[in-house]
Amino acid sequence: MDVSPSVPVAQPRRLAELPLAKDMSHHINRLTKNRQANSLKEMYKYASLPGMVSMAGGIPSPAYFPFETLSATILPYDHLPLDPPRVPGKEKKSLLSWLFGGANISFTIPKYAEDPKDPMAISLATSLQYQAATGPPAFPKFLRRYVEEIYKPAYADWDVILDVGATDGFAKVFNMLLELGDSLLVEEWTYPGAMNAYMPYEVNTVALKMDAEGVIPEYMENVLANWDDSKGRRPRVFYTVPTGQNPTGATMLGDRKKAIYAIASKHDVVIVEDEPYYTLFLGKYQQQGTNATPLQQRQIELEKQEGKEGNAAFIESLPPTYLTVDTEGRVIRLDTFSKTSCPGSRLGWITSSPIFVERLTRIAEASTQAPSGFATAMTITMLNTWGWDGYMRWLRGIKAAYKMRRDWMCDALADQFHLEFDDGALNPLVRDTAGLGRGFTAYAKHPTGSAEAKWDEKRGVVSSRGTPLCSFIPPTAGMFIFLAVHLDQHPDYHLLGNDADDVLMGKLWRELAEHLVLFAPGIGFDSKGPHNIGGKGVGYFRISYSIITYEESRSATATFAKVLTKFLRA
Amino acid sequence: MDVSPSVPVAQPRRLAELPLAKDMSHHINRLTKNRQANSLKEMYKYASLPGMVSMAGGIPSPAYFPFETLSATILPYDHLPLDPPRVPGKEKKSLLSWLFGGANISFTIPKYAEDPKDPMAISLATSLQYQAATGPPAFPKFLRRYVEEIYKPAYADWDVILDVGATDGFAKVFNMLLELGDSLLVEEWTYPGAMNAYMPYEVNTVALKMDAEGVIPEYMENVLANWDDSKGRRPRVFYTVPTGQNPTGATMLGDRKKAIYAIASKHDVVIVEDEPYYTLFLGKYQQQGTNATPLQQRQIELEKQEGKEGNAAFIESLPPTYLTVDTEGRVIRLDTFSKTSCPGSRLGWITSSPIFVERLTRIAEASTQAPSGFATAMTITMLNTWGWDGYMRWLRGIKAAYKMRRDWMCDALADQFHLEFDDGALNPLVRDTAGLGRGFTAYAKHPTGSAEAKWDEKRGVVSSRGTPLCSFIPPTAGMFIFLAVHLDQHPDYHLLGNDADDVLMGKLWRELAEHLVLFAPGIGFDSKGPHNIGGKGVGYFRISYSIITYEESRSATATFAKVLTKFLRA
Repeated sequence: MDVSPSVPVAQPRRLAELPLAKDMSHHINRLTKNRQANSLKEMYKYASLPGMVSMAGGIPSPAYFPFETLSATILPYDHLPLDPPRVPGKEKKSLLSWLFGGANISFTIPKYAEDPKDPMAISLATSLQYQAATGPPAFPKFLRRYVEEIYKPAYADWDVILDVGATDGFAKVFNMLLELGDSLLVEEWTYPGAMNAYMPYEVNTVALKMDAEGVIPEYMENVLANWDDSKGRRPRVFYTVPTGQNPTGATMLGDRKKAIYAIASKHDVVIVEDEPYYTLFLGKYQQQGTNATPLQQRQIELEKQEGKEGNAAFIESLPPTYLTVDTEGRVIRLDTFSKTSCPGSRLGWITSSPIFVERLTRIAEASTQAPSGFATAMTITMLNTWGWDGYMRWLRGIKAAYKMRRDWMCDALADQFHLEFDDGALNPLVRDTAGLGRGFTAYAKHPTGSAEAKWDEKRGVVSSRGTPLCSFIPPTAGMFIFLAVHLDQHPDYHLLGNDADDVLMGKLWRELAEHLVLFAPGIGFDSKGPHNIGGKGVGYFRISYSIITYEESRSATATFAKVLTKFLRA
Repeated sequence: MDVSPSVPVAQPRRLAELPLAKDMSHHINRLTKNRQANSLKEMYKYASLPGMVSMAGGIPSPAYFPFETLSATILPYDHLPLDPPRVPGKEKKSLLSWLFGGANISFTIPKYAEDPKDPMAISLATSLQYQAATGPPAFPKFLRRYVEEIYKPAYADWDVILDVGATDGFAKVFNMLLELGDSLLVEEWTYPGAMNAYMPYEVNTVALKMDAEGVIPEYMENVLANWDDSKGRRPRVFYTVPTGQNPTGATMLGDRKKAIYAIASKHDVVIVEDEPYYTLFLGKYQQQGTNATPLQQRQIELEKQEGKEGNAAFIESLPPTYLTVDTEGRVIRLDTFSKTSCPGSRLGWITSSPIFVERLTRIAEASTQAPSGFATAMTITMLNTWGWDGYMRWLRGIKAAYKMRRDWMCDALADQFHLEFDDGALNPLVRDTAGLGRGFTAYAKHPTGSAEAKWDEKRGVVSSRGTPLCSFIPPTAGMFIFLAVHLDQHPDYHLLGNDADDVLMGKLWRELAEHLVLFAPGIGFDSKGPHNIGGKGVGYFRISYSIITYEESRSATATFAKVLTKFLRA
């Protein structure tokens, strides 16, 4: 293949009001500076002339594609309810009936488009043919609207390019920016998939301390302002997961992002924001039997509404992104369809300045090319079948579903432990939670029927305090609870010396696995720098509530409470 | 995502008879040596325990995948005839009826497999979920059979890994092997898509001279044996397209491959064989009105047979691959579904030794992950629906279709020009064609009705010779004719000085484009080394016959003959 007709790039938007991206080309590494555009540009000028007999491209005849039609049955966009019951089966409606929505929708993609000259038409003859690395024109068109309406970028000439998922996205970005031995800013706990992509560059990872809202600006400023050049070049790239951070669940709101962006701008740092969980901004966990504030209640009610008003409330509820505050084009944002459609699509996109998007296009041309046409054709047809408002409604259903699952898991913890609010004394996650909810520290419940339990009941409290067992903040976004185990409460802790944390966490993790409960050990997410979240005497589990059933959330948490209580001999 | 349950790798085959791959780890570059396997291996041991509640993976719930079913209508495997008529419409059967075969076949992939524990089942709940970088187990299973039966590797412990097409394949291979500034062996004319992937490494490309069978062994031996170390490290990697080479159309048979392999082995060179056109090994072009030899005729008859015998004849007809002669595991073979199914699948695979496949798996985990599940689910279901024999028959239909198109194009050239056999005097493509067919040099035909034409007719010859205009060898494989234009016949040639070739080819190319005939200029394929094919006084076009209609092949060639004849004022 060597014909990749180029697609119109960046449509400058709101040019009158907004600045253009600054020149960031000094951030591009040597390998990527070396990349050349396809040398056959002049050919494209002629290729589209009417009547042209093109014998230039090494492309197979679509007549010999074995696929004649592709079809899909998809769920209606309103399949998932906006307000699922907190406890399945406790409502009058059955589990099946609250998956209410309309009927399934079918569509078929034909081999040849009705109007083969319509660049927005989706047909197998084009989707299953070689395509420009930027993908079928209908896709960037949809994404540009999405970026404009949801993220509202603060400069004019941004553009998008498809990738084959966020892992491919950050792999390409590191491939574009990093030189061997560079220093790289990361969060103190971070995603191992990204580590696997940046560590081979022999990077000196500079871990930034976090709290429940993510990286702490003062810490970041301090690192950059006092950089010791003898440790090599000052870091120029910051990799971050701002929403539902993996693994901590931290979510950064607008003011914090502004502060971090200002520091990045001052020290000329490129921000790579990897946002798989962005639309899973679930809102605050509300304990059963407690009331939301009137303001929160109003937002909840608004988001329960079907139709445009509810959609608008949903968009309004999302945190501003780094793109929203980026006036210079120093942000590279990664989005993916893995959590909003399906991971197997291997489909996502990068939004950034023209200079970065151009280089990323060159990288794509010489590696992945366009994502699979099966994935793009199916996904864009699904999006266009639902329509813009339909897709917004779908995203709201997904959000409500994971909110329900988050609540299952937090409710299960609340039921199995005695939880007390904790504003930082014991809970290393808590510092300044900026309205994102308060942390809990969990204590053993007295056994039902015990004298202590009866006495507690009489007094109207759940439990009297004992040994603190674990702490967490109910996440406001994403799929994970990052749970701190108070290992220093273990009776043998001080006998085990320096290895105590690792030894005990390993032991507890295996103990749980043998009781058929599998958590992800926190150690795999450790950026191995100084910690604000955690440190001596604390071990972490990342608990994913994304795929377990309600019953599993109950039984696994009961097992966890029993094993942990015994383990710490509380 | 961070759970990628590993799939069983390399099933050692014929261990009793065949050697194991040698250790080639010294060829792996620093970046790739740095890559780490996923750190959560211990988790997988537990993850598959019955009754395990896994809260370890960051994976979305398949209940929220919008796709409920995917369906396809595919052509029957015998859709394309094995013996299409040379001239469409000249047969009694209509164009439609010789696309005979059976009826189209439909299949539907359900969301959940009937037996969810069957690792070979294809369902959307698994295909559209995160998958191991090695892809769904059913796919490597099919490919291992294909490699074993078609390529018959000469060592035991080879394995396969999926990629997202051959471009991704060689990008990963270069990413694994090349250091900045390395020397790289390439063919004197080569594929620009590969250049775009290796040139950024600032490689010193060492172009190897070719003839109609590809790289000339003596030349390669000479380059390696007399390597001047002051030019840097001796090349350790050779990138080649052995079948239907892009752009020359050269095809290397078994004996030549053995000779090249021996040289590679002697000098410790890794061979990267990129084989998009392998099953498009079309056989020799037979001019209309001439007869094949009895041996050739027998092969043609065998390949016309439906069923297992014809399939066996097809497999038998394919050239031995580098894998077939590789006893050490120094070959990395790239295959793709782009030409046999469709390019938009972005699906191919790499076959190599365990050490290379393991590193390529690490690279995939940290970039593309598995190919799109839409593509793998659709493709493997299609293959399994057709079955092994069906797929062989499909490949034969594709081969026959491109053979037909090759013949259209060569017949059109034969009709528009007066062709004479040329064994090297004028045709730079011809050296020792090893039974691959003889080259032609083309002269102007005398205009119909002219005195010269009438005289020629009377004598029973097509034309008397005049100025040689162009030369080519009808390709025995692939999609391209690499056509040499005799620029030195241009009356102004010697006035134009050193730039004559570039100036005249540019002029001729634009002249053709303005007459609505678009060829690929040869210059884009030039490895910029010394040439055996071409050189001063000759310019090249790569003419693709893969997508044009019969009528277009006639009209475009007539235009070409007219423009070229006028251009060279013959």
